[in-house]
Amino acid sequence: MQIDNETHSLISSDKVEDTKVYNASGEKLGSIDSLMINKREGNVAYAVMSFGGFLGMGEKYHPLPWDQLNYNEDDDGYVVNLTKDQLAGGPTIEKQELNRLTDPVYGREIYNYYGSPIYWG
Amino acid sequence: MQIDNETHSLISSDKVEDTKVYNASGEKLGSIDSLMINKREGNVAYAVMSFGGFLGMGEKYHPLPWDQLNYNEDDDGYVVNLTKDQLAGGPTIEKQELNRLTDPVYGREIYNYYGSPIYWG
Repeated sequence: MQIDNETHSLISSDKVEDTKVYNASGEKLGSIDSLMINKREGNVAYAVMSFGGFLGMGEKYHPLPWDQLNYNEDDDGYVVNLTKDQLAGGPTIEKQELNRLTDPVYGREIYNYYGSPIYWG
Repeated sequence: MQIDNETHSLISSDKVEDTKVYNASGEKLGSIDSLMINKREGNVAYAVMSFGGFLGMGEKYHPLPWDQLNYNEDDDGYVVNLTKDQLAGGPTIEKQELNRLTDPVYGREIYNYYGSPIYWG
């Protein structure tokens, strides 16, 4: 099911997934693969952006704090205020390391790198 | 991409979607279709459970507060402490009404019906 309707306040997880991500210069950086959700608080911990790879092979993932993603209607995608170099230097994981996303120490690294406020303990 | 790994604190939106929902008696109620996310706060407003229908026709949807869903490993599904009658009497929408999910008044109805704390405005 796809909820086409999106208001200024609510968006469906269906719509977030596969949405393309661009930088401020309009270069495509990747696309949103999925969201990691804090079970107890019910909030989005990270958006996981995938990039590179072919048919799922060699794909890499950038976990991004949710507050880094700004939806831009013209591009029908998210815009992040990051250069390719900033992203390349940021936390990156391979498919087989995806369980690192659930490690709170790694989580802290992600938020620190992008300068987003840490909202948990 | 499917993150198989799930810890006590984090879960992937990929894993939540299509997860079956049971009541405490073990009856299958439906399955999670998607999550509605508050864009600004980055939290889950509702889980949308779908039920009935065939190939997407005649399907109906129950928006459920996130805190109603308790993951049960044995069932590999969510358990909600609601009877079928309670659900049947609860807020239900048809596919063409899905945009009601973004209406704050309707949102309040959902939270009130299930007795979940309203965390916004």
